[in-house]
Parts: sequence; C-alpha cells; structure tokens
Amino acid sequence: MAHPGRKQITGFSNPTVKHLRSLREKKHRKAAGQFLAEGLRLLTDARECGHVPQVLVMATGRDPHPLLDALERDVMAAGGEVIETSPDILSKITGKANPQAVAGVFGEFDTSLAALDRTSAPIWLVAQALRDPGNLGTMLRTGDAVGAGGLILIDDCADPFSVEAVRASMGAVFTQSIAQARWEDFLPWLRSGAGQLVAASLRDAVPYRGAPYAVPCFILVGNESQGLPEEYELACDLRVTMPMRGRADSLNAAVAGAVLAYEVLAALDR
Amino acid sequence: MAHPGRKQITGFSNPTVKHLRSLREKKHRKAAGQFLAEGLRLLTDARECGHVPQVLVMATGRDPHPLLDALERDVMAAGGEVIETSPDILSKITGKANPQAVAGVFGEFDTSLAALDRTSAPIWLVAQALRDPGNLGTMLRTGDAVGAGGLILIDDCADPFSVEAVRASMGAVFTQSIAQARWEDFLPWLRSGAGQLVAASLRDAVPYRGAPYAVPCFILVGNESQGLPEEYELACDLRVTMPMRGRADSLNAAVAGAVLAYEVLAALDR
Repeated sequence: MAHPGRKQITGFSNPTVKHLRSLREKKHRKAAGQFLAEGLRLLTDARECGHVPQVLVMATGRDPHPLLDALERDVMAAGGEVIETSPDILSKITGKANPQAVAGVFGEFDTSLAALDRTSAPIWLVAQALRDPGNLGTMLRTGDAVGAGGLILIDDCADPFSVEAVRASMGAVFTQSIAQARWEDFLPWLRSGAGQLVAASLRDAVPYRGAPYAVPCFILVGNESQGLPEEYELACDLRVTMPMRGRADSLNAAVAGAVLAYEVLAALDR
Repeated sequence: MAHPGRKQITGFSNPTVKHLRSLREKKHRKAAGQFLAEGLRLLTDARECGHVPQVLVMATGRDPHPLLDALERDVMAAGGEVIETSPDILSKITGKANPQAVAGVFGEFDTSLAALDRTSAPIWLVAQALRDPGNLGTMLRTGDAVGAGGLILIDDCADPFSVEAVRASMGAVFTQSIAQARWEDFLPWLRSGAGQLVAASLRDAVPYRGAPYAVPCFILVGNESQGLPEEYELACDLRVTMPMRGRADSLNAAVAGAVLAYEVLAALDR
C-alpha cells in the first residue's frame, strides 16, 4: 500500500536513481552541490546536528525504527523528498553489496576558511594533499573524538563528501567543520588571528611529549607518500618528533595526526 | 638483448603471469604458500630483514638502480627466478594502474603462536576480527614504529598477506612477526607466560594516561564495527579509557591501537 508523501521507485533506469547514483562521482557531487550518506546511525547523527537530508531513500522490507520515523517526519517537514525502493536499487545507489536500509542526500556545506570560527575549539586538524578518502574520514572521526573544531584540507585532498570519506568518518562529517584551501590562502588566514601551527617533523624538532602546545593548536599532517613540503614544515610554529623504533621513519598520516592530537589534548588538560 | 638468467615474458596469457596474478586472491595465496609485494623500497626492506623473493618481476624500461641490482643478485644466488616483462603485464599482476617497476613473490611466513618470542619486545599488538586490510597494514606499520614485536590476529581477520595489507604496512610485514590464532588458543598461550593484556574499553576502565602498563604489554583492539566481545574485554588485565569529547564513542581501530601503543611506549620509557 502506498504511503502518502512517499514516492515509490521500482526501476533501475528511473532518472532519480540515476541522479542519486551519480553522486558517487565527484564531478556530479560538485554540479549538484549534494552528497550521499548511508545508515540510520549516520543519518540520526546528522539530524541531531541539524542536518536534514534533502532526499531520504528507504529500502522496502526494512525493519521499522522510531528513529527512522523521526527522520522521515523531519524530511517531510523541511519539504524534502522521501523515496521507497528495493534493496537492490539502494545497493546500486550506494555502491555497496549489502547496503544499509536507508540513505540520505545532503546539500554540501560551505567549506570556505571564512566560515570557520577558530575560537570555538582548542584543536584543529589540518591535512595537506591527503589522497586517501579513508584516511580523510578517519581524521574527521579522530577530530570529533578529541573535541577538535574541524578539518582543514590544504591543496589537492580527497573529497570529504565522497561516500568512502563519509563512511569512514562515522558521522563526524556532520559534527566537524570542514574547510578547503590552497596553502597560499591558508597561511595568511592562520596568521590573521591566534593559532599555533604544529607538525610532526624530523627537522629541528622537539620531542612530541611535553612540547609547548598552545591554543588554538592547528595540527598539520602531510601527504601519504611525500609527507609535508619543506616550506610548509618551516612555516610551522612548532615541529615535534615522535619515537620511531623500527625501520620506518613515518606513520600512516591519520595515525600520526591522532597520536599528536591526543598528546595535545592531554597537554591542554594539564 | 637477453640478459643471462632473466626470463622474458611478453604475453598476458603466459602461465607464470596467470600464477602471479592469482596471488591477489587469498585462496591462491594459501594454496601456493606465497604472496606478492611491490616496489623497490619494500623489496629492499624485505631483503635487509633477510627475506629474499622466490620470484622477482621487473618491468622493462625501468630506471637502473644499484639496490635493484643487489636484489637481483640475491635472488639469483638463492636459486630464485628473475622475470622481465612489460609495465602493462606487471600492472595486470599487481592490479595497480601505475605499478612500481618491480614486484616480488615471497613464501608466506610461519604464523603460529609457537613461533613468537614474547620476550623479544616490550609491546605486542593484538587485533580481533579486523576486517580491513588497510587497517591491518597500518597496525603493522605502527607496530614497527613503536618497536613492537609483532601483530597477533585473533579470529577472522583480513589476510595480512593481501596486496592491500602488504602495501599499507609499508614494509612492516617483513619486520613484524605475525601470528594468527583463535581466541580459545590465544588466551592459554598468553597465560602460559608473562604478558599483560590491555584493551580500550568503557567498562570499569582507568584513564589510559598513567595506567599501570607492564612488559610485555599486549594491546588488544576489536573489530571495526562491533568492537571487542564482552568476554574478551573481561579477560583483559587492564581496561583503559580514552577521552571522547565528541558524539562518537570510539575511534578507528588502527588509530585506537596507535594512540594506546604510543602511550605504552612513553610509560615504559619513564
């Protein structure tokens, strides 16, 4: 039986399905100004942070859930669209073999530096040319955990609104501010207010434990294979070094950022 | 001009190419007892740790390199096979669009608990049902960085010898011991000698900073989406909690393991 206000979609070739599917590609996300997130938990996190999907897609045969009902009411109230479709079609939209029972389409956020309030949090994560969407999502998740204000993406990073990054962020894409900037725009912005820029480095660095961290602390991590350009390291207010007891001279970028962020959090709490 | 001892392969349908390609799949790795690693840096790390490939595959048109010459000599001396082939075929073998100029086939290591020497290192990483090969490789890399002895994989984990895990480990697959065991075999093994089992937990836990870590310290992290089973948490000697300042109540598994491992390292150095 059709539910009032819900649109039923049964065909793979339906234009709405095609549009939603297209959001897995960056160029279509940019053109539409939209991105996809999946799963009741993620969508509930979004809702509780004030982000209501423009389109809600639910699989037929799903288990009923009060949080899903609440989500549907909010989408309706905001004038959004509610679509019911088969698990197969939902799987085609999200690109996942075993999709969650629900997905949402959100409008992309403002990612300009001007939208950030640096005084709103003691810690900010900054990533330069981070290419792996999983690493990017993991950094958002870590940022949420340490109470960071957000993640600033410098130069050519993976898209924070890709399905993979959103998934790996475990909802933090909705709790963390996200900004995208070139280095030559970031640095003047940073220097126009309070802020300590810190990076892990082997160059003229002090031990990361007990280093003089200051608020707001901007923790900068570099590209997965190249690390930070020398110029970027030299622009930092503080360069810290972490023990490397093995053959490697570096950590995974998201791991390095997390170990540093937890150290800064402990230092600021002291 | 053909080089003595090098086998030239020019066809995609060559049986050796098919075999090497098949090593991207777990069942073929297990059947052959072999795995693939790519890149001169990784292969040089392996060589310096005493692991010489059984088969060395080099792309034609590669830049000459003394480390590659040394590798080739070692493979020849050990009675291994050296193959020269086109970049296209190498790409087909490794499954990477822009392959490194060289790849190697290694015999899989002994991954029994009995092969571990727990007294050889102060820290050991333990992962339960870790499903993501990238996380697994990242944990190996972190283990190398903190001077851990190795990674113990409990229950159904991703394959540490998959191309993705080997790649993410950045060579640590050759420096870290790796063991695979069921929980019911791991626990008696652990209790048969010295060893403190530590997990991040919300259950009856002490703050992770300043917790009474002891050597050898076994740091246990749980599955990406389920976390640790209650029974496993309760079997730990020490449960520690990390600050969670945001909406999330957990970190990425590899990140949680790394933050804990660096804390343990600092505590043991004190």
